[in-house]
Amino acid sequence: MESQAERQARVVFTPSGRRGRFPLGKPLLQAAWELGVDIASICGGRGLCGRCRVVCGEGAFPKHGIVSGPEHLSPAGAVETRFGERNRPLAPGHRLSCQAVIEGDLLIDVPPESQVHRQVVRKAADPRPIRLDPVIRLYLVDVAPADLGESGSDLTRLLDGLHAQWGLRPEFPAALLPDLQGALRAGEWSVTVAVHQDAEILAVWPGFKESGHGVAIDVGSTTIAAHLCDLGSGDVLRSNGMMNPQIRFGEDLMSRVSHVMMHPEGSDELTREVRRAVNELVAGTAADAGVDPRDILGLTFVCNPIMHHLLLGISPVELGGAPFALAVEESVHLPARDLGIAVNPGAIAYALPCIAGHVGADTAGVMLCEQPHRSGAVSLLVDIGTNAEIVLGNDRRLLACSSPTGPAFEGAQVSAGQRAAPGAIERVRIDPTTLETRIRVIGSDLWSDEPGFGDALPAQGVTGICGSGIIEAVVEMWLAGILTRDGVIDGEQASRTPRLVPDGRTFSFAIHGENVTVTQTDVRQIQLAKAALHAGIRLLMDRLEVDSVDRIRLAGAFGSHIDVRYAMALGMIPDCAPDAVSAAGNAAGHGARIALLNKASRREIESLVKRVEKVETAIEPKFQEYFVDAMAIPHGTHTLTRLGDLFPDRARLPDTTVPKRSAPVQGRRSRRKALPSNSG
Amino acid sequence: MESQAERQARVVFTPSGRRGRFPLGKPLLQAAWELGVDIASICGGRGLCGRCRVVCGEGAFPKHGIVSGPEHLSPAGAVETRFGERNRPLAPGHRLSCQAVIEGDLLIDVPPESQVHRQVVRKAADPRPIRLDPVIRLYLVDVAPADLGESGSDLTRLLDGLHAQWGLRPEFPAALLPDLQGALRAGEWSVTVAVHQDAEILAVWPGFKESGHGVAIDVGSTTIAAHLCDLGSGDVLRSNGMMNPQIRFGEDLMSRVSHVMMHPEGSDELTREVRRAVNELVAGTAADAGVDPRDILGLTFVCNPIMHHLLLGISPVELGGAPFALAVEESVHLPARDLGIAVNPGAIAYALPCIAGHVGADTAGVMLCEQPHRSGAVSLLVDIGTNAEIVLGNDRRLLACSSPTGPAFEGAQVSAGQRAAPGAIERVRIDPTTLETRIRVIGSDLWSDEPGFGDALPAQGVTGICGSGIIEAVVEMWLAGILTRDGVIDGEQASRTPRLVPDGRTFSFAIHGENVTVTQTDVRQIQLAKAALHAGIRLLMDRLEVDSVDRIRLAGAFGSHIDVRYAMALGMIPDCAPDAVSAAGNAAGHGARIALLNKASRREIESLVKRVEKVETAIEPKFQEYFVDAMAIPHGTHTLTRLGDLFPDRARLPDTTVPKRSAPVQGRRSRRKALPSNSG
Repeated sequence: MESQAERQARVVFTPSGRRGRFPLGKPLLQAAWELGVDIASICGGRGLCGRCRVVCGEGAFPKHGIVSGPEHLSPAGAVETRFGERNRPLAPGHRLSCQAVIEGDLLIDVPPESQVHRQVVRKAADPRPIRLDPVIRLYLVDVAPADLGESGSDLTRLLDGLHAQWGLRPEFPAALLPDLQGALRAGEWSVTVAVHQDAEILAVWPGFKESGHGVAIDVGSTTIAAHLCDLGSGDVLRSNGMMNPQIRFGEDLMSRVSHVMMHPEGSDELTREVRRAVNELVAGTAADAGVDPRDILGLTFVCNPIMHHLLLGISPVELGGAPFALAVEESVHLPARDLGIAVNPGAIAYALPCIAGHVGADTAGVMLCEQPHRSGAVSLLVDIGTNAEIVLGNDRRLLACSSPTGPAFEGAQVSAGQRAAPGAIERVRIDPTTLETRIRVIGSDLWSDEPGFGDALPAQGVTGICGSGIIEAVVEMWLAGILTRDGVIDGEQASRTPRLVPDGRTFSFAIHGENVTVTQTDVRQIQLAKAALHAGIRLLMDRLEVDSVDRIRLAGAFGSHIDVRYAMALGMIPDCAPDAVSAAGNAAGHGARIALLNKASRREIESLVKRVEKVETAIEPKFQEYFVDAMAIPHGTHTLTRLGDLFPDRARLPDTTVPKRSAPVQGRRSRRKALPSNSG
Repeated sequence: MESQAERQARVVFTPSGRRGRFPLGKPLLQAAWELGVDIASICGGRGLCGRCRVVCGEGAFPKHGIVSGPEHLSPAGAVETRFGERNRPLAPGHRLSCQAVIEGDLLIDVPPESQVHRQVVRKAADPRPIRLDPVIRLYLVDVAPADLGESGSDLTRLLDGLHAQWGLRPEFPAALLPDLQGALRAGEWSVTVAVHQDAEILAVWPGFKESGHGVAIDVGSTTIAAHLCDLGSGDVLRSNGMMNPQIRFGEDLMSRVSHVMMHPEGSDELTREVRRAVNELVAGTAADAGVDPRDILGLTFVCNPIMHHLLLGISPVELGGAPFALAVEESVHLPARDLGIAVNPGAIAYALPCIAGHVGADTAGVMLCEQPHRSGAVSLLVDIGTNAEIVLGNDRRLLACSSPTGPAFEGAQVSAGQRAAPGAIERVRIDPTTLETRIRVIGSDLWSDEPGFGDALPAQGVTGICGSGIIEAVVEMWLAGILTRDGVIDGEQASRTPRLVPDGRTFSFAIHGENVTVTQTDVRQIQLAKAALHAGIRLLMDRLEVDSVDRIRLAGAFGSHIDVRYAMALGMIPDCAPDAVSAAGNAAGHGARIALLNKASRREIESLVKRVEKVETAIEPKFQEYFVDAMAIPHGTHTLTRLGDLFPDRARLPDTTVPKRSAPVQGRRSRRKALPSNSG
């Protein structure tokens, strides 16, 4: 009679298609690992974690030449029953692969949730799904008990177990020593350890611990956003945001740098504020998700250079003036407790690398998310804040710069301007015939000429106009013929509408009521901002030697708010097919999440930023030239996009012939002086 | 005409004997480095640090076949003159090798103080000099200034400079980032960095920094000692000691463990106490030496296992009972600030490895100092505290154990016993005829029968008897015939002297006045202690299969206090030629200093402790047998050492024939019970 050891079965794993012959009696998980099939396990095959669940195919599979069925696996035993009792019973056809033993030919499907390196898809529009391979992983370890006859400390025996059972030899930091003996005894010589980069133990828990958590954090000048993730599944359990409390030191970054320059303790004060806010946000997000903060093991950060330095306790004054030297551009990792964040005491914080003095880790996050280096197509990534951070390139070359747009796109330095918040006008339409306006306000879905508009307004009513509103207002004024191409509000049109009123030697246009008007100075601010943005982009295009781009992604809150048609009409971005332009959403934050969940992505972005060619707009003579060129409205040849394609409902449209080069616009030089740098 | 570039000179360096031919015009330091000659430099050849000073030989050196002289070097220039002005003028014949240029044949002597790896000799009796090669070194780096046209953060340019100028690529911890930019600008783009293990930067100072410091610390149960060293020269600048404030929780270690067992916060309390004490000691030592604590970059620690665990914040309760499991035996390194020690914020603390549950990092320090593994001779190292830690072996095998001597040798659990402190009787003589006593007291050099003894006593008078005093008293009582070999105070001798008085059913002997007497119980305590020590040693000798040892070193304060003749007469240590026994002094502390000043010694001790065979006396049946055997006074064959050789002035000496095996001595079992472990 043939002995069982000699008999073999054919086993095929899907979706990988890996296959092999195995002796009957071999546990399925072991067979899978021998073939290199990606099956997860925290407990190492003890039937505790349930991560290794598989589905047994039933029937004939001609493609593979086998007949498979649950009867070709050992029957579910006590361990699987106990697992089902402690958790939920296994679904029909599901088995723990660490317990099920091969007894015949099998087709075994490994569902996504049982794969270590499964793809995490955020939403359909994701530029790329994340391949789950977190920097921090949990391992259950059985440790030889202390015994009088045996030598070896508790730590030695733990590390020996970790090596024997998982092939790892990580460092054990001294800070964890005080709790080690208690954990080993409470867990009856079985503990779960969290290991960082396979190199360092971050935490030890008694017994089996199912999952650890991480938080991806986007520290913006205005808002701070946190995304709490399960490191085992990659799922976002909760996303929260809050205002950056530093705002009381100045809405824009340069005001905050000025505060630091003028107050000896200013830098420490701003550092304390931002750290306190991050700590509060993380605590609140964990509480909302029902997660113990001590189970948070990793944090990743994206931020602009000034927020990055302040978060790390570095004074931003060097970033406030030429030569705008970063203290550090490399990625930084440090204990989360050094940032005063109350998570697991061993938790590691990682800040993505910065790119240049004004192109920060937030842009690195955008790049990680948008992957411009993985395509032959030329991508233009624009993140607009007080500065615009611009990346241009493809798989061959990448360039970056920042351009001093100033805060007008954020609603600052505009007479009725305000941040994008409930009550702010975000949409504006001007009837070219009557010159009557229609508006829409953040917090309401109704246009002002729709019934019920007044009742649907947020409590504070109409409070001002935000960046996207002012851009639409300026474009609409031009479309309606009350703004010249040079950006002068045309007083000659005042007879057509009472909304056009003299304002000193210039005119203003009333958008809503008496308080929300667009002044000549407001138009100038928008012209300066859009010209700076356009000039920065054009400089990079020059360097890359391209006349057009294949894809434009507008990152951040501004990119999500703005109506792309208006950005194109205004000439903020280069001429481009309208459907090639889109909002990237919270690309920086998504980049932080990639760095949290995928180990390789950290090396990728660290080497990528080194490849980026940094262009310093402040010392590029061409920048001044392009800047002046770009002041007129609109700008660009509009050969790819005709104005009529953007606004097909408009009967009459202004002439878009490229104007002759204008004289330097008044106010430009003084503004450059007023801003000591292009930081932010 | 022959060009200078083609002409070459012969250069010989002493004491290394390295030699080579070099083109005229080459700086001497560069030639030396090319030959691998060991010449120090912090400033990298800028003429700032003066570490590379050499002496130019003058005259004919037939052995080397050259004629050398100062005229074969370029004349001293402005840099050397400036160096002499800022420091002290260079001695005649001395040159900075980084400035002097080869212009002819040369014999160049590199004096010890210019060698990186010079030998540091503590004192003539040193078991081995330390080869200076500190774990932490300073490097002066010139950094490319920040420039608008150049990309690269300040950190990138610092690391690039360090690589280009010193060939190093260390990590830069995030905690140093906040001060980096200030240091670079204050130092005008020249900074000194402290680098740990060539792998991590610990500190950055503006400009040139001459030297860094380290402290070797011996944390004993009773006292804590600190040795402040210059890491550049290896010199001990100051050694200070203080009482361990934990003494208020119990004189011996087991009382402190009991305190921890009985108080929930006890462990943290003891940790706080010892850390506060170390911090205070380090601060005081630095102040006494005129050293800024921020210039202290490294700390090394030796301690017994319980102090080791408490220092690291680990509860010692597991060490208080079987199986006496250490949390960690491996060497531990951690930021000094995690121990609450106010030195340089980047300073690294290193605790030497422990050997076993009762054989601590202090014994590792003793091994590093005494080097038993480097000799074929069998060494016995004994460190006596509440426990005796014992190491036996040679270059082939090493064994270690601890033996539960109890605190009697430290003067505890003895009726008139006290710690070795001023006022304690440390020497006792008994006239065998008159049975009159003579004593000497710590704090006075006079014997009690010498004139002026009373006046020379320390202020507190005679306060008790310390460990060495009680040992001498017991041996003298036996030599005088008033103590039997079984350790019974012989009441029949009471007629000879009023000092022998009944004490319940036994007798006591008055050593000094009415208060300092030796009771029957005191004798039993000493018998138990010496029997435990002897049994432990014999167990190791059994295992090593040797009948005698070649060398005995008694480490620690007790080893320095005790008169070796009495230790031998009592049978504490095995029979051995008297001149083979000596005190090792503060061997543990010296081991800590070696670990501070010599990089390789850390790896040496880390691998050495793994080789040590640990013997657990508690589960060795032979230990009980040897223990019982060793109760009698004296013990041993005394074939190597006859009693008459130890005490040549004594006319009459007791019989030293080995007694028959005695019955178990009363009190032994209960004492083993009373001591929950042999810890300490």
